[in-house]
Order: sequence, then C-alpha cells, then structure tokens
Amino acid sequence: MEIIKEGDYILISTAGRRYFTKVEVGKSFSTKTGSIKLAELIGKPFGIFYNSHFVFKPNLEDIILHGIKRGTQIVYPKESFFIGLKLGIKNGMKVFECGTGSGALTLIFSQLVGENGIVYTYEISEKFLKQAKKNFERFGIYNNVKFFLKDISEGIDEKDFDSAFLDVREPKNFIKLVYDILKPSASLGIIVPTTNQISETLPVLKEYFSDIEVLEILQRYYKVVPERIRPEDRMVAHTGFLIFGRKFITEF
Amino acid sequence: MEIIKEGDYILISTAGRRYFTKVEVGKSFSTKTGSIKLAELIGKPFGIFYNSHFVFKPNLEDIILHGIKRGTQIVYPKESFFIGLKLGIKNGMKVFECGTGSGALTLIFSQLVGENGIVYTYEISEKFLKQAKKNFERFGIYNNVKFFLKDISEGIDEKDFDSAFLDVREPKNFIKLVYDILKPSASLGIIVPTTNQISETLPVLKEYFSDIEVLEILQRYYKVVPERIRPEDRMVAHTGFLIFGRKFITEF
Amino acid sequence: MEIIKEGDYILISTAGRRYFTKVEVGKSFSTKTGSIKLAELIGKPFGIFYNSHFVFKPNLEDIILHGIKRGTQIVYPKESFFIGLKLGIKNGMKVFECGTGSGALTLIFSQLVGENGIVYTYEISEKFLKQAKKNFERFGIYNNVKFFLKDISEGIDEKDFDSAFLDVREPKNFIKLVYDILKPSASLGIIVPTTNQISETLPVLKEYFSDIEVLEILQRYYKVVPERIRPEDRMVAHTGFLIFGRKFITEF
Amino acid sequence: MEIIKEGDYILISTAGRRYFTKVEVGKSFSTKTGSIKLAELIGKPFGIFYNSHFVFKPNLEDIILHGIKRGTQIVYPKESFFIGLKLGIKNGMKVFECGTGSGALTLIFSQLVGENGIVYTYEISEKFLKQAKKNFERFGIYNNVKFFLKDISEGIDEKDFDSAFLDVREPKNFIKLVYDILKPSASLGIIVPTTNQISETLPVLKEYFSDIEVLEILQRYYKVVPERIRPEDRMVAHTGFLIFGRKFITEF
Repeated sequence: MEIIKEGDYILISTAGRRYFTKVEVGKSFSTKTGSIKLAELIGKPFGIFYNSHFVFKPNLEDIILHGIKRGTQIVYPKESFFIGLKLGIKNGMKVFECGTGSGALTLIFSQLVGENGIVYTYEISEKFLKQAKKNFERFGIYNNVKFFLKDISEGIDEKDFDSAFLDVREPKNFIKLVYDILKPSASLGIIVPTTNQISETLPVLKEYFSDIEVLEILQRYYKVVPERIRPEDRMVAHTGFLIFGRKFITEF
Repeated sequence: MEIIKEGDYILISTAGRRYFTKVEVGKSFSTKTGSIKLAELIGKPFGIFYNSHFVFKPNLEDIILHGIKRGTQIVYPKESFFIGLKLGIKNGMKVFECGTGSGALTLIFSQLVGENGIVYTYEISEKFLKQAKKNFERFGIYNNVKFFLKDISEGIDEKDFDSAFLDVREPKNFIKLVYDILKPSASLGIIVPTTNQISETLPVLKEYFSDIEVLEILQRYYKVVPERIRPEDRMVAHTGFLIFGRKFITEF
Repeated sequence: MEIIKEGDYILISTAGRRYFTKVEVGKSFSTKTGSIKLAELIGKPFGIFYNSHFVFKPNLEDIILHGIKRGTQIVYPKESFFIGLKLGIKNGMKVFECGTGSGALTLIFSQLVGENGIVYTYEISEKFLKQAKKNFERFGIYNNVKFFLKDISEGIDEKDFDSAFLDVREPKNFIKLVYDILKPSASLGIIVPTTNQISETLPVLKEYFSDIEVLEILQRYYKVVPERIRPEDRMVAHTGFLIFGRKFITEF
Repeated sequence: MEIIKEGDYILISTAGRRYFTKVEVGKSFSTKTGSIKLAELIGKPFGIFYNSHFVFKPNLEDIILHGIKRGTQIVYPKESFFIGLKLGIKNGMKVFECGTGSGALTLIFSQLVGENGIVYTYEISEKFLKQAKKNFERFGIYNNVKFFLKDISEGIDEKDFDSAFLDVREPKNFIKLVYDILKPSASLGIIVPTTNQISETLPVLKEYFSDIEVLEILQRYYKVVPERIRPEDRMVAHTGFLIFGRKFITEF
C-alpha cells in the first residue's frame, strides 16, 4: 500500500472523467462531483475512494494523456506502447529519437531502457525542447535521457544505437543519417500522418533498411454496460501511420 | 556490432518471409531463395545480408511470432505490447498472471519488470506450463518468473502485486481473488474473445474495480510499394477484447 | 438541366457545410459565407454556384441526413444503402418494415420498389408514425407506402412479402411472425445496437431462417488535400449490427 | 411462392458454403454435404430445404459474388451497394459508367434505373466487354444497358447523364470529359485502389466538382454462435477508396 505524500501527482477519477493534479497543502480540487481539500489526502493510500472521488497513482498512460504539457501533437499510447516494444527496446539499450516534441514518447523509451540504458533525443525547436525537459523533470523515473537542441541534418556525434525513432516532417532526409548511427540488425521506427509521406519515405528507406512494414493501429472502446455491450459511438480514426525497418549490412 | 555465435537464435528474412532458427554447426537452412550453411554465419554480425538472406537478431516480436512453441492461442503483439504498458508495468514490479498459456505474455512481463522485478504466473494445464517453461528457458532474459501449476480458485499465498492479468475462460470467477492480492490503485487487465464474456465479467468487475475500460485493438498493414500505397487485402479482424480496471478501497 | 422552382427543396453547400431548405419567396438563407435571397434562385439550374454558395438538388442521402425530421435514431446511409440491396429489394417488390421510426429507411425501400412495388411499414408510436408520414409527404417519390399504427405482436393480415426488415427493441419476439408473412427464399434484415441483442436474436432466428449473417459496416472519411492524404481524425465507430437470414421451408 | 423451373439459376447453401448453378435436367450438383439431382428440384419452391441443401433464388448479391464470371477485379457489394444509392441513382435515370469490367456494378445500375432508365457503359478491353455482356445476358433484368467498346478519351457523343462512375486506372484523365456529359448538380463516383491515385485525382476533380468526399467502407462479419458472439478472425481489409463529387456550374 503506497501512501499519498505532499507533492505527489495524483489521478482523480469521478463520474467517468479523469483529472490530473499535484497534492498541495492549502489547495482544493473541484470536479463535477464536488470538491476535495488536497491536504486531506496526505497519509491516505493511493487507490482510496474518498469523498466520491477515486484517487489513483498515475501510471504511464495517465501521465501521457493527462499529465504532460503539450506544445505539439504527441504520439498517443495506442501507438507509443506498440512502438516501444516493436522496436525491441529493453533495459540497458541506447536509443535515438528525433524530434523530441513534448517528450511523450521519450518518457516511454526512458522507462523501457531503465537505469542502465540511455536515450538521446534531438529537437530543433527550443520551445518544444524546454517543454519536454520540464515534462521529464516532473514525470521521468530515471536520469537516463540526454536532450539536444539540434538540427540533426548537421550530423550526430553519437553512434552504435540499439534502436531509433523519427517523428519529423520529412523522414526521408534522415534515413541515411540514422542508418549510420544504428547497429546492424537494429530497428528504425517512423511516424507520419499522411500517405504522401509514406510514399516519399519508402524509396529511401528501402536503400538502407530491410523488412519494411507500414501499419496503422486502431483502438475501439466499448461502453461498459453489461446488458448493452456495444462500441462507443465515435472513435479516433487516425493519428499516424507507423513505418518500421531493420538495418542490414552487406559487408563488414 | 554484435557477432553471431554458435547456439544463437536468428531470424532469417528473405523474399517477404521470415524464418526463425538456431545456429547449429553442420546444419543448413533452406528457404524459397536458397540454402544457407548455418556454420558460415558464425563470426558474422547480426544484420548481415548473406547469400540473398537477411540474418537478424530476433527481437521480442520475432520471438513471440516465430520463436516460441505454442500449445495454445497466444496473446499477439498488437495486444500484448499495449497490455504491458497500459498496466503500467515497469522495472522492479511484481506482476500476477493467470493463465500462463504458452508464455508469450509472460515473456513481455518478464522483460518489462527486469532483473529486480518478478512475475508470478499460474497455469492449470501441466502441458501448457511445460511448454511455457521451455519457451522461457530459450528466450527469457531474466531469471524473474515463478511458474505455478495450480488452479488459482484454490487460493494464492502471494499478495501485494503491482499489477495483474487474466487470460482465462471465466474471468468473473477470479475477480475477487485478484482484488485481494493487488495493491490499491493497481491495474487489472483481462482478455476475452467474446462479447458474452464481457457481459459476464463486467458486473463482478464493477464491484471491486473502478475506471473500467473495454476496448479492442486493430492493426492494419499496408503494402510497401511507394507508388501504390494501399492497405493489404486482408487483415486480422479479431483476436480478443481487452478489459481494464483499477483497484480501489473505501477504507484502510 | 433542371431548373429550380418555388417550393423546391435545395441543398446549399458552402465552406464545407451543408444546409437543407425549401425555396420560398420572401425568405433569405444565411450561412457562414453570407446570405442568399431564395427567390433569386428561381429559374436558375440546380448545380449553380451562386453568391459563393453551391445549390444542389438533394439526393436520397441529403434527404436522409439533412432533410427529414427525426423523432428517433435513424438508420444511416452507410447501413441503409447496404440493407436495401442486400435484401434484394427491387422494382415491383412487396416489402415489410417494422418499426417505421422517422421513415428514413422507408424512403429507401419506397424508392427501390418503385411505382409498381409496395412497402408496408408498422409503427407502435403515434408520434413517430406522424413524423414519418410527414417526411414521406415531403420527400417520397412514389405513392407506394402503407403506414400502420400497430403493435405487430397482435398479428398482421398481409402476407407474401418479398423481403422484411426489423428495427425494434426485441426482434426475437417477431421472428416467427415475419417468417409467416415472407415468401420462401426471401430475406429478413434486422438492426440492433448491442451484442446482447445479437445473442438473444440468433437462437430464434436459427429456427426459421438459414444463411444467417451478422456484420457491421464502418465508413472512414479522408481529408481531401491531395498532398496530405490521411483519414479524418475521428469517425463514427458504431451505429448498429446488421443481421440477415433467408426463409426456408421443409415441405410445401 | 415461386417455383423452380428448368434453366433457373439457383443458390445452393449447405454447411456454411454457397454454390451457384443452373437447373439442368440430367445434371447433378455435388457439395460437401452430398449430391442433388437438379431435375428433382423442378416444381419445388425456391427456399426449399431439400436433401440437406437449402435452395434459394439468387439475389443481386449472390449473382455478383457467386454468379458472374470475372475477368477483372470487381467492385464488391460492400462498395457497390453504397455507390448506387450515394450517387442518387433511381428509376428512369441515365447513368454513365467506365470501365465496364466484368459488369458487376453495371448490373446494380441497371437494376436501380429500371425499365425506363438507361445505363451507358464503356470498356476499352474487348475481352472484358464480352464477359460483361455475357454476364448481363444471364443475370440482367431489364434491357436497359448499352455496351460500348471504346477508349473514352476519344470523346463520347452522349450527354445529359444523371450520374457517372469511373473505375479506370487514371481517373484524372477523364474528369473533364465526365463533367461535360453530366447534368449540373449530378454526382460522379470514382473507385481507386491506392492513395497515390487519390492524390492524383483530387486536383483535377476540384476544378470541376464540389462537395468532394473520399472514404472507404469496411465490412466486419461476426460468428453467429449466440453464446460466443465475436468478430470473424479475418476480414477483407481493403478493396478500394471511393471518391465522390458533384458537378457545379458558374453560369448558364
């Protein structure tokens, strides 16, 4: 049983809605259901149903959906959970990411590589990088992310990455660069919103990478009334297309 | 650059197909493209394009799709990658799973909790558990899984789990048990193939868990011809429905 | 070239939005783009781009989506277009429908059976039937629909229908009745919003009908920017499940 | 009750499979379930369950899926049923189609416009047109289709069409031509398999047509076991993208 302390982030759930906040003495939090004096939560366990509100410890999905501040379109859990494991990212790995954006995916990579791994993340916009760093200070678990304010077309000094991800406007411009810094057999992932970008990316990708896959992930929620099981009326129809490939070499 | 050694598992990719095998001296591997003497790969790096075949180091998805032996329907990566992170599983956690099945999901949990975490997995079928153990011996990274041949309706001694997953025929029978062994605020995940099972599970689940979600994940692959971008002709339309909830307590 | 007359219904399209109205002298119609004096349209052809507004002759989809008044959830074109032809409805046929609802599907059946066909439609709610009749007066093409204010569980005098459709809360209660009034080999269609209703309907349906199919139809719209082809952000995830069967007889 | 005659086409349904054949004296038809002497069916009603086989009168969907001979990829019912009504096609209309292909969509248009309507269909391949004509001779209801062996880029003499459909490799080349032969306010539909073709078609389409929509239709079948409701394991993931627009004029 983990106890809520001052300064902890909490997820408040009530009447089908979720709220993300920080436990600060002297503050109250109001929802449709009512109001909670946050100080009263201190000393109580996470998971408590208090004053008609459920108070949970935020997990990674909560943090991404409700916790982080966004300056950009983020990579959503339905894609980012898949990306992390599809890229084979695990403890101790060295991962490349560009761009950082709001750092939502960076948080996942950081958690997956753990304390012995490292994530190098590059962002061209100072504003976004500042945002991402702040998100990481708040919600990062490990001190394993290096943030770079840099246009990677100028080149990167690091190499021997175990895996790489590109979330940039023109991924085709960076395929060769990523190829050079990846270990052979390592996977590259890319997200693009449009099919035109798929068309533009594939020819370059095919020069350097094998086992190319393009896919999209759809998530469909259901209403949770047992005697009336049916999908929700509306759903997210599109966030992005995912492209994956593996680095191969012909000699060594 | 990681070098292929005798006894390593490899993923051979050629002509749009993938093959999983072990590097054994004296053996050859034949594909549509031709044949490779496996001993010739020893000393070459993973990622090599050799004799018209790409030779990759299998990642977690390769292992699940092509490596493990299956005695049962497995939880596929499109779901299992999502489950792992949706449940908030990370390094150091203590995770409960029932049933083990072929151990595909167990491998993911094991990788996510890392060397300081632990996975307790329960299976009622001796045959399946044996299979799962063998898969884990071959492909597990950490020595962090405890396998139990047990009908959990008899009760479980362990408790204080950080997260739990049920892949059983009648999840409704085990909701109370899982509730008792989970920490407050922890998440439970369930997979069921039919909507009838959703209907049966929800009433019991709602007694003990909050923030219930029911969803399905669809994965749609695209052909990778840049000048003719279009989805594949056919896709997997269904594997299972995912149900999630969080444990709450009303007093402590 | 068809000319707009006083009293005609028109579809006004501008700035990505559509409006449905009737041409009445002395009235203006205002949109985000501006205002049109409707009298000025008289004598101009349908299809005219006038005063920054496109003025089209409403087709069946426009009438269903924008023209008819709704007292109930209607069957949407993505389903109703499919239903009409899946049931094999064509000129000269005699079609059974219950309930009428707002008459959206009735309009399609009426159009498909043409002047030599006939549609019998039954509704238990006086309010809905009144609405449906009014919609039919406005938008029906043929005088080929008979409206009944009736609880069909009391029985129906008509028989020898070529096809039937049920949009009622408990279709299972009417399967036998519909069986009795259908010609052998004729198709029955049913729409239900929940999977529980599928479960309840099938056992009864299977007693009397063969070749049973259950399906859903999803429609995904794309943004129409040529250099940025991608699905719309959101879509309708669910309206209803469709169930179909064919009447068989074992002797005659 | 309609009686089976010699020469009738029938749909035989048994053990979850459907077969399409013609009733010919002296012939037998074998299925997994057994064999039927077709002559024995003569005089029996459509809809009869005979010798463990259901014998139905084929409807339009049966004819398209099981009856017509195909020299080409056809437009499937999930799209063609939608297309017909989305284009607003009804009794008495004059419809343009290019290319004819195997004539599957032509059959639908023919049925929708009825005996007072007419369908002009153009095909560049002699082989396909021959096939389509034969399909129409077998399965057409009305004598209302004119078949042309012609490259429409040479121009078309007919005009004043109420609606048009293009199923050709490069629709962009024919947009202007179709515009010229359509009545103002009439709808054009297009089917293309790839997103690249959407990108190529839209710029030309936007010059002449308004209210442009791009969409795809997905059909997901369910298993029909009442106590185990779930989608089928696999589904058709893609046949084509549909594009629609309406002709507008700026003066007259």
